[in-house]
Amino acid sequence: MSEKGAKTALTPSTHTTPPAKFSHGVRKGNILQVSGQVGFGPAVPGQAPTPVGPGLREQTLRTLANVEAVLREGGASWEDVVMIRVYLTDTGHFPELNEIYNEFFADLTEAPAARTTVYVGLPAGLLVEIDALAVLG
Amino acid sequence: MSEKGAKTALTPSTHTTPPAKFSHGVRKGNILQVSGQVGFGPAVPGQAPTPVGPGLREQTLRTLANVEAVLREGGASWEDVVMIRVYLTDTGHFPELNEIYNEFFADLTEAPAARTTVYVGLPAGLLVEIDALAVLG
Amino acid sequence: MSEKGAKTALTPSTHTTPPAKFSHGVRKGNILQVSGQVGFGPAVPGQAPTPVGPGLREQTLRTLANVEAVLREGGASWEDVVMIRVYLTDTGHFPELNEIYNEFFADLTEAPAARTTVYVGLPAGLLVEIDALAVLG
Repeated sequence: MSEKGAKTALTPSTHTTPPAKFSHGVRKGNILQVSGQVGFGPAVPGQAPTPVGPGLREQTLRTLANVEAVLREGGASWEDVVMIRVYLTDTGHFPELNEIYNEFFADLTEAPAARTTVYVGLPAGLLVEIDALAVLG
Repeated sequence: MSEKGAKTALTPSTHTTPPAKFSHGVRKGNILQVSGQVGFGPAVPGQAPTPVGPGLREQTLRTLANVEAVLREGGASWEDVVMIRVYLTDTGHFPELNEIYNEFFADLTEAPAARTTVYVGLPAGLLVEIDALAVLG
Repeated sequence: MSEKGAKTALTPSTHTTPPAKFSHGVRKGNILQVSGQVGFGPAVPGQAPTPVGPGLREQTLRTLANVEAVLREGGASWEDVVMIRVYLTDTGHFPELNEIYNEFFADLTEAPAARTTVYVGLPAGLLVEIDALAVLG
């Protein structure tokens, strides 16, 4: 692959099909951008995507796993991530989100990514959405 | 233009003047960032910026056209875009937004950009805001 | 420092410790990402972070100073910033935010950064959050 010009869609096999003409992630040169991921379980043919659980913990862990799958598909890992955007629906979820986040990233050896957390509306049933920007190389 | 050091403001002639000291877009090296665009029609001297219509369809198409004008001003096209951020005000608008999005990008030949969609507050009258990150070359 | 591979956490000495495993900013190669900053005053050992004032002006100026400290820690300045994301809690704050923004950036010599402003929820007491993306070199 040439470092210049090639733009690659990243589509993990377990992911549900995006509901519109966008990619779960894109790599171009040394930049990898992961789309906003939510806590959907692996795609099941003929079934609409469903979140893995009603709780923040299950959804957050699944969301992070979904981000990770896109990173891997593009040849990257969490070590390459420079920015993580966390969208929550409730300011009361901040402490629990941080607990889960720290557990998930406990083994990170590189500097942790930067992060912005804001509180927005999300489709019914979803408590968290996360996207990420990685710089490779 | 040197690839290093040069930071260029992108100011399409049809765009309204930003309400503060920011640029509609900026290119530096191979990175091009488009500011949050909304559905304002072309600038009319002496008139405040106004959205092109009250409906999601008109506003979204105009917003995408406004993003595109900034991309072109910086020598880029949708093919170069790696990330599109869509801000809606109502989760009920998601299916219609996706329809419009698919029509607009029907002819895209490269992999579609990544995307994050969240639901936020916007100034009165605005239903959608979109920004974009492109990597050139 | 090698331009490739090195990912550096940016931690200004005056900053409060992040409430989870993330960095106030990260630099990798020529990309510098600043985390969402708020109007917290300098860290005081043994005290929880507190915003500098109840008003938009104090909080915005302090937030911008906090972003700037992270930029400097990574060898960058506002001149290198390509994108600024502004999160407000109230659409009525837009005109005052723009006034403060223009004062703050009055002396900028390079093209101003791109910007997206949206209205979200923030933890109690916070009126503004700002993050920034810089491209160096």
